[in-house]
Parts: sequence; C-alpha cells; structure tokens
Amino acid sequence: MPELRKDPVIGRWVIVATERAKRPGAYIHTHEKSRGGFCPFCMGQEHHTPPEVLAYREVGSSHDGPGWWIRVVPNKFPALQIEGPLKRTGDGMYDRMNGVGAHEVLIETPDHNLSLGDLAPRQLQEVLWAFRDRVLELKKDARFRYVMVFKNHGHEAGATLEHPHSQIIALPVVPKRVQEEIEGSRRYWEYKERCVYCDIIHQEEKDQARIVAENSSFLAICPFASRFPFETWIVPRDHGLYFHEIQKNGVVELADIFHKLLPAMKETLDDPPYNFMIHTAPFENVGIPFYHWHIEVIPKLTRVAGFEWGTGFYINPTPPEDAAAYLSGRRADVQEIKVSQIP
Amino acid sequence: MPELRKDPVIGRWVIVATERAKRPGAYIHTHEKSRGGFCPFCMGQEHHTPPEVLAYREVGSSHDGPGWWIRVVPNKFPALQIEGPLKRTGDGMYDRMNGVGAHEVLIETPDHNLSLGDLAPRQLQEVLWAFRDRVLELKKDARFRYVMVFKNHGHEAGATLEHPHSQIIALPVVPKRVQEEIEGSRRYWEYKERCVYCDIIHQEEKDQARIVAENSSFLAICPFASRFPFETWIVPRDHGLYFHEIQKNGVVELADIFHKLLPAMKETLDDPPYNFMIHTAPFENVGIPFYHWHIEVIPKLTRVAGFEWGTGFYINPTPPEDAAAYLSGRRADVQEIKVSQIP
Repeated sequence: MPELRKDPVIGRWVIVATERAKRPGAYIHTHEKSRGGFCPFCMGQEHHTPPEVLAYREVGSSHDGPGWWIRVVPNKFPALQIEGPLKRTGDGMYDRMNGVGAHEVLIETPDHNLSLGDLAPRQLQEVLWAFRDRVLELKKDARFRYVMVFKNHGHEAGATLEHPHSQIIALPVVPKRVQEEIEGSRRYWEYKERCVYCDIIHQEEKDQARIVAENSSFLAICPFASRFPFETWIVPRDHGLYFHEIQKNGVVELADIFHKLLPAMKETLDDPPYNFMIHTAPFENVGIPFYHWHIEVIPKLTRVAGFEWGTGFYINPTPPEDAAAYLSGRRADVQEIKVSQIP
Repeated sequence: MPELRKDPVIGRWVIVATERAKRPGAYIHTHEKSRGGFCPFCMGQEHHTPPEVLAYREVGSSHDGPGWWIRVVPNKFPALQIEGPLKRTGDGMYDRMNGVGAHEVLIETPDHNLSLGDLAPRQLQEVLWAFRDRVLELKKDARFRYVMVFKNHGHEAGATLEHPHSQIIALPVVPKRVQEEIEGSRRYWEYKERCVYCDIIHQEEKDQARIVAENSSFLAICPFASRFPFETWIVPRDHGLYFHEIQKNGVVELADIFHKLLPAMKETLDDPPYNFMIHTAPFENVGIPFYHWHIEVIPKLTRVAGFEWGTGFYINPTPPEDAAAYLSGRRADVQEIKVSQIP
C-alpha cells in the first residue's frame, strides 16, 4: 500500500509508493526501453489494462472491447490506491496518511503512432471533454481535495509508454505548488484588488513580445519569468477558478490553442519531450475567488540539475521573448539558434 | 548580460541567462558529448580557464600554473556576472534585477579520472575548506544575500564536464527553497520552541531505520519524506545556522561522512549521477536562530516528470527505510531489488 508522508520542515507531502518500483523504466539507469512490439493501449488489447472507467465509443461496441476513440483506465502501476478510508497517523514527530487516491490513464487516440499534437482539433476536443468528465467524477469522492490532469510526452519527460496518453491523479491533499499559487494570487489580490492572472493577460497583450498563440478565449504565452526554455502557459481570458467549468466554446478554443502550440513546438524544437499540467483550484474553495485556472506546458530541453531542485532557483538559457518569437513563427532562424547552443 | 526575473504569482526569481545557451550540452537533445580528449580542468591546462580566484598549491608554484591540488575559477559560462551594482527595475507589472552574482567552479582534484567519492578523506577535507573559504570571501560582497555550494555529478545530473568539480553561486536574492525551509523551521520553532532539524536528529536516532552513516558530529539519513529514491541528508548534530562556521573537527568528520556515503552510493547504485547542495542560512540572518544548516544529496535515478515540476508533489518508488538499509550495508540483496525494478 502506498503511503503519503509529510516533510516536517517544508510541509510538502510525498507519495512513497513501493509498488512503483516495479514499473518498467522506473530508474533512469535502465536505458533498454521496450519500444515497438506489444502495446496495451492499442485497439484490440483492452484486456491488458484494468477495466475502463470511461470510454467514448461507437454505439453498440462493448465495454473493454474495441470501437473507442477515447479510453480511460486505472493506471496498472498506481501511485495511489482507490480503496479504503483516509487515515492520518502520527509517527513520533512525523505525519503519515495512507495512500488513498486515484491514478488513471487517458488514452488519447487508438492510433499508436500519432502524438497529441498530431490530433485533429475534433479529437483534441474529445480529449478535453474526457479530462473534464473524469475531474467531475472524481470530485464526487469526498476523500479527494484535488485532481491533477497532466501529460508526460517522450521518454525524457517521464513517459514509460509510447502510445499517446495523459494521466489523472486524485489526491487527498492539495499539492504544494498549487498552494503556493493560491497564496501568491491571494497576496496580489489583497494588495491590488485584482487577479494576478488577469493582470498578466492584460500586460502580455500590451507587450505582445511573449505571445505564442491566441484566440477569443485563450492566450498562450511564454511567461515573463519562465523557468524553462520555451515554457508556455495557456491562460483563459475569462477569470474562473476551475478547469471543469469550461464551456463548450471554451473546449473548442482550447483545442484550437493546443492545435497551434503543440505542432509549433514539434517543428521548432524537433519533437521535444514535454509535460503539461492543468492548474485548477482545489475543490474546497470557499473564499478563494482570486485564483485563475491555466495550463503549463514545459518542453524538456535542459537537464534540471541539483541546483534547481535544491534551491527552487532556475537558470533559463532562452529568453521567453525569443522562445515566443520562434513558437509563434515571428522568427524562423531556428537552425541558427540551435547551432549557437551547441558549439 | 543575464537578468533576474520574478514570477508575479509565486514570487520565485529565475535567472534568464542568454549566455548559458552557448554552454556545451545546454540542451538535452544534443547527446553527442565530447568525452575524453581535451579537459580545461586538468593540470597543465590552467590557461584554458579564467584566472583562478583560489588555489591550494605547492609552495613556490605560480598562480594559474600547475602544482595545485584544489583550484577555484570563475565559470566560463556564468549564469550571473560579477560586475556592476545591483539594479532593481519594474516593467509594467513585472520585476527585474540585473544578473549580478558570482558563479565559480571548484576543481576538486587534478586527477581527471577520480570522482569526489574516490578521494581520500584528506583531499575531501581540502574540498570542504575551499568551499568555506569561497563562502567567506563572497560574503564580503554586500550585494550578495546567499551563497550556494552544489555539485552535479554525471551527465544525467547536469554535469557538462567530466573532471570532478563543484560549483559556487553567489546570489543577490535568497532562493525560494531556502526561504521555505526557513519559514517551515520558524513555524516549528514557534509551535514547539525547538529546532525541527534537532528534533529530526533525535527522532532518527530513536528510530534507527533511516540512518545511513554517523559519527560524533554528523548524522546521514534518508529523510522520512524523501522526494527521491536514496535521497540522503547530512545533518550536523550541533545546532548552527551556517556551514561556514564549521570547526576544524567538523571538517574532518564531514569528510568522513562523505567518504562513507559516496562510495556506498557508487557501490549500491552503480555509480549513479547525483547532486548535492549545502543548505545554509542567508547572510542577513537577524532573528532566525531556528535554522540548522545541512547538506542534501540526491542520486538521480528516476526521471522527474512534469508531474513533479508542475505540482511540487513527488512520487518516490523506494521507501527511505529500504534505501538507508542498502546504503548503510544493513541489507545487501541489491541485485534482487535491482531486478525487481526492471522487469
């Protein structure tokens, strides 16, 4: 049974999940990756995954059979387990919680050889609807305080299987980074009486230099203090706490932004490994009107060294203004920048 | 000129350093590493580095010539630049600071083929004295609020050169992670009227299960809420704010702990990439008696995915009790655990 443990200094919860050790490629030392060959996420291999919790499938096709275009299944190597009540216990000065939570895999397409950025806007919309459906479903479980939707694309970004998929984790605690954003947004709100993300949108529209893509509902920008080269945030223009309160037009427009951003990253950065995560407010939100949901997309181009982990202090070799210029197509001398990075 | 930029939500400072883009291997995509051949850190190649700022060398040998056993030089690809006054400026809603700071490389031995863990305790002590000397020197500069001493060992951990070396960065701001530790220690102090790190030492001595190595001045433990498998903290038994106030016996005993820990990691984990960082209090410390300096050593075994970055929420596949048992030699069935991790 996995366990949640709290760092006594920082207050950060960590999942200590012995089960994860059995996951293929869990340690970076094993470079031998099983590429090609059998894939449990392909059409016709449904019996190799745990039973599906959601699928968008052809009328008349059967549960855990072929005929789907989106499929969500529990992770076979879950970081958290769905069964049982939440128990908090002390152990001397330390705090533990049993590892209750959900850990699901969303298969984004039946086609093994596509990637999320290759999908047609229509299929991207289906992915987004499925994210939303799962968040709504998991939200019903009173044990969970937060649902994270994220994606690891490519081996270097932590993906252990090639077939395009995202992940959904429901947690009994609010992740530290989300808490920090809420705290930061609160401080800004108290000082300015405005939402910091709304102000960022306003500022970026004025400056223009960091805009990657936009439409009537969303702005994609390389943030002013980007931690990573080509880091991109997708921020909804309308102030709102929750991803899951996105409306139908919002889904269409968010898919449109992904359909612009991901191919641009693939083209500019030679199909980089990347991660994205949807930052949304915790469910118990009473009294936090100042948060503003958004998505962070991070191509993994630099090695994050001990320096960064140890300090929370990042060194970004590419100014976000340059990154945005390349991603938006305003600049195209990509070969040049690549060469200058690698003498 | 590199620049410091502040995230408007989280308050985290980031170095946006265009100069870094020219560093060899800056982007992970370039797998072609120049191994073997010429090394600017080897004896006799002193003119390939910027002039030394410190060296421990034979009497009569000349500055920037051979005859040294420890040598500290400015980083040729500095994340920050040493010249000029500190200037803070606003840019719309955003905050910038010019990238003033120091970025130095400490060459730990003239022998290219050794690693820090191979060094004799005597030479390890020399490394530690040089760390201390540089911190004391940089502390004199009123522009700097914090000096970080850290090491990236191995390509996967961010090292771009093979020759054993550590790095020293002096910053005009206190890194976020250090601030969090200080905040956390303060809360604990206010609630318990005790130091949280002193309590950790007490608890770990009682539990025994997470102790990796110890001597009369230091305890090396795998922390209760380890973020990473085999993460190890070296905590001085005596409460103290500053690494640089270590005494002579402390240096001897800290070298002894490194001499136990690093070979154990090499043996148990097959010479893993790793990072360490010395966590010490900021220079302007008035009113923070509750902090306790220590060192965090993190082997890089798992891929840190977007999940971890995006959330500050870590999944650790190895319980720290197991990690400590292996590293301390209390358990030796390493082959077995390795096999079970890689099916």
